[in-house]
Amino acid sequence: MRDDNCIFCKIVNGDIPSKMLYEDGEFKVILDLGPATKGHALILPKNHYRNLYELPDDMASKVMLLAKKMAFQMTDKLECDGFNLVQNNGEAAGQTVFHFHLHLIPRYNGDGQTLGWKELELTADELEEIKKIITE
Amino acid sequence: MRDDNCIFCKIVNGDIPSKMLYEDGEFKVILDLGPATKGHALILPKNHYRNLYELPDDMASKVMLLAKKMAFQMTDKLECDGFNLVQNNGEAAGQTVFHFHLHLIPRYNGDGQTLGWKELELTADELEEIKKIITE
Repeated sequence: MRDDNCIFCKIVNGDIPSKMLYEDGEFKVILDLGPATKGHALILPKNHYRNLYELPDDMASKVMLLAKKMAFQMTDKLECDGFNLVQNNGEAAGQTVFHFHLHLIPRYNGDGQTLGWKELELTADELEEIKKIITE
Repeated sequence: MRDDNCIFCKIVNGDIPSKMLYEDGEFKVILDLGPATKGHALILPKNHYRNLYELPDDMASKVMLLAKKMAFQMTDKLECDGFNLVQNNGEAAGQTVFHFHLHLIPRYNGDGQTLGWKELELTADELEEIKKIITE
């Protein structure tokens, strides 16, 4: 299952070279070419799924196990101080390649990156209203 | 398995109130009190694990399935335009509560949040060197 116009499909299939950290039957892990930090990598399913919504349940389950495994290996080898997982869906969320990918971002004290956000100030009533929208 | 000094353990146990979106035997999903966007929520395991490294494999597997399920529900109900998953480990990565949590962040066109990063410019040789550090 492949999209001929997808750059990550081309990487997975070896048509475009990459710095590969790991491979199994269902996934490749490669270094990100525009890294936030030293060692920033991407978990890519070999099949083409546009995003989390399209990722089959068994793959969703496996991707987090692989993230944990990679986090141990990368933390050990890179001696990083922290680790972020980031996964973006849709242009509004900053997704730029529409093939599911999970960012593995080793973090270092003083690395100068901020992956945080401005916090909204919501009242208890506003939070209750949002809860109702989601759950009712 | 609980840490008496942990605010998320207190939320999970109901000692501190929260706006709960979902609960099963192993997880609670609650609204974040300092949200990036409308509907920003957290998946919390009921047991106390400090981070991804401590999260047992079966829980890692389940947490991504739950994230997918919540992404569908929240996208449907909130009519958001995108969706981020963020999971921070260690102070260097911006973790502030040391009980594993996965951020579910609905995104809206023009919501003004940026969860991105400055990209490092690395040469092919530098990337190859990093690959070797991780894989050898």
